[in-house]
Amino acid sequence: MKVAAVAIGHGAFGKRSDASVQELAFEAFREAMADGKNLERADLDAAVLGSVPEYHKQRSLGGVVAEYLGLNPKPIWLTECACASGSAAVRTAYMAIKSGMHDVVAVIGAQKMTELSTPEILALMGRVGEVQWESIFGTTFPGYYAMFANAHMHRYGTTREQLAAVAVKNHYYGSLNKFAMFQKPVTIQRCVEADPVAFPFGIFDCCANADGAACVILASEEKARKFTDEPVWLEGAGCATTSMSVLRRPNHYSIPSAQEAARQAYRQAGVDAGDVKVADVHDCFTIAEILAYEDLGFCEKGKGGKFVEEKQSYIGGKHPVNVDGGLKAKGHPIGTTGVSMTVEIVKQLRGHADKRQVPDADIGLTHNVGGIGQYCFVNVWRR
Amino acid sequence: MKVAAVAIGHGAFGKRSDASVQELAFEAFREAMADGKNLERADLDAAVLGSVPEYHKQRSLGGVVAEYLGLNPKPIWLTECACASGSAAVRTAYMAIKSGMHDVVAVIGAQKMTELSTPEILALMGRVGEVQWESIFGTTFPGYYAMFANAHMHRYGTTREQLAAVAVKNHYYGSLNKFAMFQKPVTIQRCVEADPVAFPFGIFDCCANADGAACVILASEEKARKFTDEPVWLEGAGCATTSMSVLRRPNHYSIPSAQEAARQAYRQAGVDAGDVKVADVHDCFTIAEILAYEDLGFCEKGKGGKFVEEKQSYIGGKHPVNVDGGLKAKGHPIGTTGVSMTVEIVKQLRGHADKRQVPDADIGLTHNVGGIGQYCFVNVWRR
Repeated sequence: MKVAAVAIGHGAFGKRSDASVQELAFEAFREAMADGKNLERADLDAAVLGSVPEYHKQRSLGGVVAEYLGLNPKPIWLTECACASGSAAVRTAYMAIKSGMHDVVAVIGAQKMTELSTPEILALMGRVGEVQWESIFGTTFPGYYAMFANAHMHRYGTTREQLAAVAVKNHYYGSLNKFAMFQKPVTIQRCVEADPVAFPFGIFDCCANADGAACVILASEEKARKFTDEPVWLEGAGCATTSMSVLRRPNHYSIPSAQEAARQAYRQAGVDAGDVKVADVHDCFTIAEILAYEDLGFCEKGKGGKFVEEKQSYIGGKHPVNVDGGLKAKGHPIGTTGVSMTVEIVKQLRGHADKRQVPDADIGLTHNVGGIGQYCFVNVWRR
Repeated sequence: MKVAAVAIGHGAFGKRSDASVQELAFEAFREAMADGKNLERADLDAAVLGSVPEYHKQRSLGGVVAEYLGLNPKPIWLTECACASGSAAVRTAYMAIKSGMHDVVAVIGAQKMTELSTPEILALMGRVGEVQWESIFGTTFPGYYAMFANAHMHRYGTTREQLAAVAVKNHYYGSLNKFAMFQKPVTIQRCVEADPVAFPFGIFDCCANADGAACVILASEEKARKFTDEPVWLEGAGCATTSMSVLRRPNHYSIPSAQEAARQAYRQAGVDAGDVKVADVHDCFTIAEILAYEDLGFCEKGKGGKFVEEKQSYIGGKHPVNVDGGLKAKGHPIGTTGVSMTVEIVKQLRGHADKRQVPDADIGLTHNVGGIGQYCFVNVWRR
């Protein structure tokens, strides 16, 4: 059975002290309900919430979200896979529909990252790495990805400026996205001269914690055209894992789970990398986008730095990537990100992305990494 | 497509300072792998982890569990629905198989509750109620359920001794279960005279936080008989929600989500309450088991107290319930509980429950409530 995205909604990302997590969820949900054609609450069979619960004061988030969105007594459940929690929600909703258990499922990504104090957040984030053998020695997320960057620079000659080129591209596109946390372009020079975070990263190589929500309504083939004239079909849903511990990885210049998830998604959809016209990938740090180009097969292994330097990931290039600004400019509300990526790809495949529209986009892809690569979800969408 | 439980594993519940959460998961997983016939890791397509992440120091639990169990690069994802997280895992694994995405899925419930200090745990648990309007005024879990108990006593004349009779039954059966946290019988007198917690509850009316893990391997109809000669089929999987806020409930002497989830599960399985030969229900507090009898249709509304007083929920009675000791005697590792219930029902339907065996058990049921009823999952199983 085929499954389509039939409606999308997206709220503003950033420091949203104006709204609770359930209010953020409602903002995106309301927009999605309005986006669907004659779509009513009664048409929904269930909801899946992508979120990392521990950043919120409220526990049992699915419970408050179901109530606040007026979904009772419909089922809701929460999925958590660190920064890929939103894609885990998309995938379980997809399975719920393919299984015949439900016909129409709302996928909600909702996350606040600013309720807790910065030291509390840093303590929590460090422990998304392996606690027993790694985070106890002080590993942090920028530290892990900086290690990947150094490995890539050492092995393939990737340059500081090539890393910065990712930030320049994504902040440029972010300047065209009204939902982005940061809407100003930056230059290579500003990036390389910025305050250091973890060598080789400066502040512009790192995405920012953010609050925000997004919503995608999925429906079965039978129901899809009732709610939209522009269904966007989920044709490949890959998911794979790699050891959490970086000590047990085969190398530090690729994400094996991303390579495997991409293989699965391409095979299911019957396409290959060359067919992908637009992609949203997980650029939590600039190196992560370069690894994604390579892991997804958009360019040869080791050539990711050159790929962005040559603007092959801009609109007009070989594979436009993160033309919504990516995590880099949008901000990274960790449980929401996978759903936000989905919203952008659906918008692109419908041809409604305005100034950021990729011409003739018929096949799109989302690539969402959890943690430091212990999970990766790759979805292939077709209009 | 039909889906069966083909293998089960269960570890000891209690204060497990001897093991990390991934070690607990492995203990149950190893037992399940040994329980399956010629079942190898290579036969598994994916795993789902039921757990409430915030009680652990380690974040991104799916990542450490996948690595420690040797499951990389297979997919894993975590489901969270408060105390029903384990049943949410069973349900998404069921959908994963029915969807045709995976054939064999390991469902792992793994939870530590004793890593954090008691004040930290109490603070977290209070916030499983509605934070904005309720927990801020000091609501706690015993307080919520005590309110349900008072409402039931007031409306239906349920007695203190009838509440205690639930504890007496469950501790009696717990004394026959080697995995239970508490393995000693108690008397009505001891229960009613015990230290008070929240009126009318004494300490024996409340389940205990525990560490522990359980594992169930589910497989498609096509694969099931390869791994077991005694498949136990999941024939109904109901799930529903009720408002998180108790202020918005229709009453406080029933759990509407349980009634709705039961209706769904019975309808899907083509059975009614009278057909259920053995059930594991969510007795987080003694009143919760009495509500479950009524919400599931084992007795008339308001007659739950009498039902247990007359030993209708003992082996030999009309509907044997929690003959493994329930949460009351086993302890309640919140993310594991739904999987533990499943292990017991599979064991019963196979006829392998030894001294606790319900004769001629062919249809079994699990009833797992999340939080104070904001979620409920009811599954019907058939041998």
